[in-house]
Amino acid sequence: MTGDLIGGQVEDNNVNFLAISPPSPVSMSCPEKVEAAVDLIIKAERPLVVVGKGAAYAQAEDVINQLVEMTQLPVLPTPMGKGVVPDDSPLCISAARSKALQEADVILLLGARLNWMLHFAAPPRFSSKVKIIQVDICPEEMGNNSASGVALPGDVGVVVSQIVKNIKSRSVQFKFSADSLWWSLLRKKIEANVQNVQAMSNDNSVPLNYYAAFSEVQRAIPKDCIIVNEGSNTMDIGRTMLPNIFPRHRLDAGTFGTMGVGVGFAIAAAIYCRDHWPNKRVVSVQGDSAFGFSGMEIETIARYHLPVVIIIFNNNGISYGIKEDTWENAKKAGDLFITVPPTSLQPNTRYEKLIEAFGGKGYFAKTKEELRKSLQSALKDQTPSIINVMIDPGAQRKTQEFFWLTKSNL
Amino acid sequence: MTGDLIGGQVEDNNVNFLAISPPSPVSMSCPEKVEAAVDLIIKAERPLVVVGKGAAYAQAEDVINQLVEMTQLPVLPTPMGKGVVPDDSPLCISAARSKALQEADVILLLGARLNWMLHFAAPPRFSSKVKIIQVDICPEEMGNNSASGVALPGDVGVVVSQIVKNIKSRSVQFKFSADSLWWSLLRKKIEANVQNVQAMSNDNSVPLNYYAAFSEVQRAIPKDCIIVNEGSNTMDIGRTMLPNIFPRHRLDAGTFGTMGVGVGFAIAAAIYCRDHWPNKRVVSVQGDSAFGFSGMEIETIARYHLPVVIIIFNNNGISYGIKEDTWENAKKAGDLFITVPPTSLQPNTRYEKLIEAFGGKGYFAKTKEELRKSLQSALKDQTPSIINVMIDPGAQRKTQEFFWLTKSNL
Amino acid sequence: MTGDLIGGQVEDNNVNFLAISPPSPVSMSCPEKVEAAVDLIIKAERPLVVVGKGAAYAQAEDVINQLVEMTQLPVLPTPMGKGVVPDDSPLCISAARSKALQEADVILLLGARLNWMLHFAAPPRFSSKVKIIQVDICPEEMGNNSASGVALPGDVGVVVSQIVKNIKSRSVQFKFSADSLWWSLLRKKIEANVQNVQAMSNDNSVPLNYYAAFSEVQRAIPKDCIIVNEGSNTMDIGRTMLPNIFPRHRLDAGTFGTMGVGVGFAIAAAIYCRDHWPNKRVVSVQGDSAFGFSGMEIETIARYHLPVVIIIFNNNGISYGIKEDTWENAKKAGDLFITVPPTSLQPNTRYEKLIEAFGGKGYFAKTKEELRKSLQSALKDQTPSIINVMIDPGAQRKTQEFFWLTKSNL
Amino acid sequence: MTGDLIGGQVEDNNVNFLAISPPSPVSMSCPEKVEAAVDLIIKAERPLVVVGKGAAYAQAEDVINQLVEMTQLPVLPTPMGKGVVPDDSPLCISAARSKALQEADVILLLGARLNWMLHFAAPPRFSSKVKIIQVDICPEEMGNNSASGVALPGDVGVVVSQIVKNIKSRSVQFKFSADSLWWSLLRKKIEANVQNVQAMSNDNSVPLNYYAAFSEVQRAIPKDCIIVNEGSNTMDIGRTMLPNIFPRHRLDAGTFGTMGVGVGFAIAAAIYCRDHWPNKRVVSVQGDSAFGFSGMEIETIARYHLPVVIIIFNNNGISYGIKEDTWENAKKAGDLFITVPPTSLQPNTRYEKLIEAFGGKGYFAKTKEELRKSLQSALKDQTPSIINVMIDPGAQRKTQEFFWLTKSNL
Repeated sequence: MTGDLIGGQVEDNNVNFLAISPPSPVSMSCPEKVEAAVDLIIKAERPLVVVGKGAAYAQAEDVINQLVEMTQLPVLPTPMGKGVVPDDSPLCISAARSKALQEADVILLLGARLNWMLHFAAPPRFSSKVKIIQVDICPEEMGNNSASGVALPGDVGVVVSQIVKNIKSRSVQFKFSADSLWWSLLRKKIEANVQNVQAMSNDNSVPLNYYAAFSEVQRAIPKDCIIVNEGSNTMDIGRTMLPNIFPRHRLDAGTFGTMGVGVGFAIAAAIYCRDHWPNKRVVSVQGDSAFGFSGMEIETIARYHLPVVIIIFNNNGISYGIKEDTWENAKKAGDLFITVPPTSLQPNTRYEKLIEAFGGKGYFAKTKEELRKSLQSALKDQTPSIINVMIDPGAQRKTQEFFWLTKSNL
Repeated sequence: MTGDLIGGQVEDNNVNFLAISPPSPVSMSCPEKVEAAVDLIIKAERPLVVVGKGAAYAQAEDVINQLVEMTQLPVLPTPMGKGVVPDDSPLCISAARSKALQEADVILLLGARLNWMLHFAAPPRFSSKVKIIQVDICPEEMGNNSASGVALPGDVGVVVSQIVKNIKSRSVQFKFSADSLWWSLLRKKIEANVQNVQAMSNDNSVPLNYYAAFSEVQRAIPKDCIIVNEGSNTMDIGRTMLPNIFPRHRLDAGTFGTMGVGVGFAIAAAIYCRDHWPNKRVVSVQGDSAFGFSGMEIETIARYHLPVVIIIFNNNGISYGIKEDTWENAKKAGDLFITVPPTSLQPNTRYEKLIEAFGGKGYFAKTKEELRKSLQSALKDQTPSIINVMIDPGAQRKTQEFFWLTKSNL
Repeated sequence: MTGDLIGGQVEDNNVNFLAISPPSPVSMSCPEKVEAAVDLIIKAERPLVVVGKGAAYAQAEDVINQLVEMTQLPVLPTPMGKGVVPDDSPLCISAARSKALQEADVILLLGARLNWMLHFAAPPRFSSKVKIIQVDICPEEMGNNSASGVALPGDVGVVVSQIVKNIKSRSVQFKFSADSLWWSLLRKKIEANVQNVQAMSNDNSVPLNYYAAFSEVQRAIPKDCIIVNEGSNTMDIGRTMLPNIFPRHRLDAGTFGTMGVGVGFAIAAAIYCRDHWPNKRVVSVQGDSAFGFSGMEIETIARYHLPVVIIIFNNNGISYGIKEDTWENAKKAGDLFITVPPTSLQPNTRYEKLIEAFGGKGYFAKTKEELRKSLQSALKDQTPSIINVMIDPGAQRKTQEFFWLTKSNL
Repeated sequence: MTGDLIGGQVEDNNVNFLAISPPSPVSMSCPEKVEAAVDLIIKAERPLVVVGKGAAYAQAEDVINQLVEMTQLPVLPTPMGKGVVPDDSPLCISAARSKALQEADVILLLGARLNWMLHFAAPPRFSSKVKIIQVDICPEEMGNNSASGVALPGDVGVVVSQIVKNIKSRSVQFKFSADSLWWSLLRKKIEANVQNVQAMSNDNSVPLNYYAAFSEVQRAIPKDCIIVNEGSNTMDIGRTMLPNIFPRHRLDAGTFGTMGVGVGFAIAAAIYCRDHWPNKRVVSVQGDSAFGFSGMEIETIARYHLPVVIIIFNNNGISYGIKEDTWENAKKAGDLFITVPPTSLQPNTRYEKLIEAFGGKGYFAKTKEELRKSLQSALKDQTPSIINVMIDPGAQRKTQEFFWLTKSNL
């Protein structure tokens, strides 16, 4: 765009306003197929509802909550589907995600895709006998990585209404028993994981581990804030440690896993809030590597006085556990290019100074207490801010049962 | 593909047979929208049902015929939608196509797209006030070139069933009156056009005009044969002169208007018939220019003894009315490159000899009688054949009300 | 292009004639490099000059003939480089091609590329110790598949002049001895191959083998005709059996090996001859498979009365030696699709009838005598013609020492 | 690249070292064309030598300096060709660029392209009668935007040697007279421009104008430092204000004018210097908008302790002269999005703090004296540094005779 175009002015009545496109048409599924799907759900021994971002985009939260409360089915959200059913609902079994996916015999998939985010629905991450009921706006998704089950194309909200109506129309009202073996297995797994996470969260060692830092963030931020979350470990662990109570209140890298999206997402969310939700705050939790991709865009945040709080989990990049003395020795020996992995970032970067260059407020936190006070101060204030939290370069996620890209036939 | 791959052999049990994809999911429309659509139809003064190839692909003929017979609505097929409602039905108003499209106030569009084949639904070819009810498998088509009306996404057959059910559920049964002004206007237009065509068909001048030649073809070919039809005038006029009684029995260039597809279509249709409809014949009517694109593929027809009858309407290419003496004079003067348009083909080519080179039978026809006898002989026999019919190079379509690509804002 | 554009007319003075681009700049090589190249040539024990189509395009024939006659170096043309040095020159060692390439210790490469046409200059088709002097207009070609030797970028004619001048400037005049071991080895190989070919050419069995048919063609056609030659075996064997005495008188598939180019090449050559060389004829020798790709374009040859002779070497397609009785049995059993390889064409196609459809003359030849008479008649006449020569479906090239795509590290 | 690949180790003898490609072949021009070119030069009344980056890449500086000193021809470098002939040579007429290009009758173009950088060689920026001698490695460049003149394809150094040799071989030695009208016109123009620039350089107003700031930079930096220079006005004015005495010592956006290349260029140059020229410094002068594109990469500079000095010419982005009070008022009125052009950056950004975040040294300069002291300190030290120089947002280039993209037929 040329400069005169960017800086030009035009009279309102010289603007050619285009008619907006008509509202999206709403499609629904055949009653026979809905009947077949409900039959599957009712007969299931280990049923599971998976809620994807398609359900959030379709604004289908009311009818989905009606369905799961009526049936007491266990619910698992995908990262961007979090909040459609509140993360603090007793039906939400995120803390038993691996087990739930692996042992479910019938999955009701609401607006989620069977790509690598859901392990291609393939063993060993899924049961080879699982039947999947796909509810999706896009007919071409049906049968992708899942030949069996029932295909329910259509608007997620409308199709779930069809399911609810079908269940209600039956003579015997269906409710999945809280005393079932499946619920007791899931509850047991959840408890174990909660304890595991609790232990790590309680660890006050400095530098902090991810769980300890996240537990402070979780406690401090408003329940209704917009959470932007990106990075590698920072995003993965943030998906479990930062609960969403409302739908469409979380932005992360989603399906493609792209790094560098955080600051842009935060700007977009803040402008939306300014116009629609003036009382909501935007909190962006980012790994230091991820932040580096587009960190300069904090200038835009500062320029328009957007009250964004950026929290950088700073473990010196993808440093494979390399500590400061390695750096010191390498520097003395003059072989930084050889000794230090090229994915590492310089240790102890003071990211909080960056926002100061643009007139914002910077905070530096090594301990839980410093983090807590920084959060309180930053959230009380409307000034753009960065909280730079030092994370142990050797810290990792809790031990995982599967390698993250596990697929049987790779 | 390498030669050893093409000529190789493999044991059956070494073949990795892939599971076929599950049947396409069936989607339907919301009852509220179906209600709104039926309201529109009932209140219409000049309603029209347009049947596209999507309706044929969806195999929705039974329920569509049920709808139009029940309601007595006038029906217009697109070229590849011909035969869903039989062309000889009294409801089919193809002979009044331009008038019907131009004056209809409500159009029920079944599996057809509003592209140039339907003049972008724009004036002057359509009324500026027409309301269009779009029934289509593809939600993205909704609102294309038509913002008003009702969007009914879903499987054409299922959605038409919803429409039929809604109409039946109403207290007063809807039927569009045969005595309406609309029907009398359409009937009058049809009669005028039929007479017009009849006059041209009766013209026995040699070389023949298109209508005279087509009337012989129409009379001779079996009602259930597969009609392949391509070219420019040859395809356009063939769309009106060769009726289809059954759905999915016509192949032409369709939406893209590509030339050179005829021989390939004929081969595909003949192989399908060999396996599924051994009593049906394939008849391919092609312009000489169109045939030239891929005429050599008659070798494949001959190689596998496919009983295809190719009828070439030979007007010496796109010759702009240039006659033989122009050619003779140009040849004598040695300026063929300058005098004769580069789109013209050599006059009086004996295309029938081409099939003889491959062991088939060739026929040459200048008069109606020669054409009639050639058709009788070719259809009695199972040998691949070409009938080379000489058409007057100056012959054209009957006068059209609109230029074929008419669009108001072009 | 729209019809009105094609058929329109415009006044000469309304045409915007563009200035033609300036003549290509001429570049030459450094004297030091030319010196180094001549040093290599003089010290070589088994030198070879390879002449490519770049030499023909550069119109460098005079100075190249001056060089090779002065030095008596053995010369090998690439297919499109044939005729730069006449194929009947005693210096031309095409009949010992494989041996020459394989044992040469220094190659002077004039306008040819080291791609698969020259076996990537790699063992076992080339000596691992060969030094290649590359003369090429394109600097980026230097070092391609050949790291050693000397790079002489520039116009082929100018650089060869530099070489000639350098050789002449030396105190002792260089001439490669006819009594050298290298020349005696090459001559011995040539004699053996000539006898081998002679034996096959003398075979009068019907259907004819390739060599027998080509020997008749070679005898009949004028020495100065433009030879178009395409196909698989038909082109490969035609490269050795149809000599070129003049440069730029042969058109074949060249580097890319594309089939279906023959008829188009023949049309282009005939139009060029009409305007520049009215006494020269165009003779196109094509395999039947290759002809099928664009055979319909003979309509253009006929339309403009271009005096082209097309000779089709008809072995029933790529039939892997399948004979007529296989076809007959398959036809009876109704399993043509299974028994006959999909690359085979129908046996005994009468291609000569195709040209008759367009008013040309067709000839059918099974024996040498029929072929001879057909050629005499076709060449005497100016009418477009096709000679359909039946070739034994089991006929092949003479035994080759290497598989044609041989490359050591494939 | 996967993490294990990045972090992995391999034994030296398991590495497959590829042979490096042979040195580029050297081509030269025909003696006849060189003769014609020298004829043109000798007869010229207003000759000009233009030295492009191709001459720098070809390392042709010695022979080019020999040519121009011998002939006393005026020389004009392109931005990346600066230093081939030292900018402080009396033959260098950069300060009269527009006049020289516009009035030259013969241009010897050494390794430069006639694209928009040289105004497509079209009027009114060039004389319509100019004859251009193109010396270029790429034959396809010949005749681009310049049909007349002489084409000398080949290596710039070798072709200039041919020119020198040709001139020397002539009976009367050619030297372009210092008393010529052309030289006196050029010298007069240079003087006027130098005075003009001097006046702006002497202006001590705060904030500084570009020329005042550049004059301080010019004085402070070592003559042999590598100058990186990018931005809009910052780069354009830097091309005239920062002289190069050595070839290949300047990196800017070059032909494509891309912004955001500066930090990357500085890193590359610093790594090269570390290995080859340990005593040379890298100084990068960048506009603030340009710096913002990739400013975060200063982390890499800091991580590897590269002694780069970045000087940011900070005029608050492309702010069209907007001052601080506009910002303040807009902030109070809450209409920053409307009032301030979207290309503006926040005023008074403290870029020097960014490098402090990574452990480097930051400097802030509003006056000449502050700039001078900052430069002294930064250059004395080996620590990575940023000097943030405040520039008047309303400052511009000196008045130009032509709009920068002037082309007669645009």
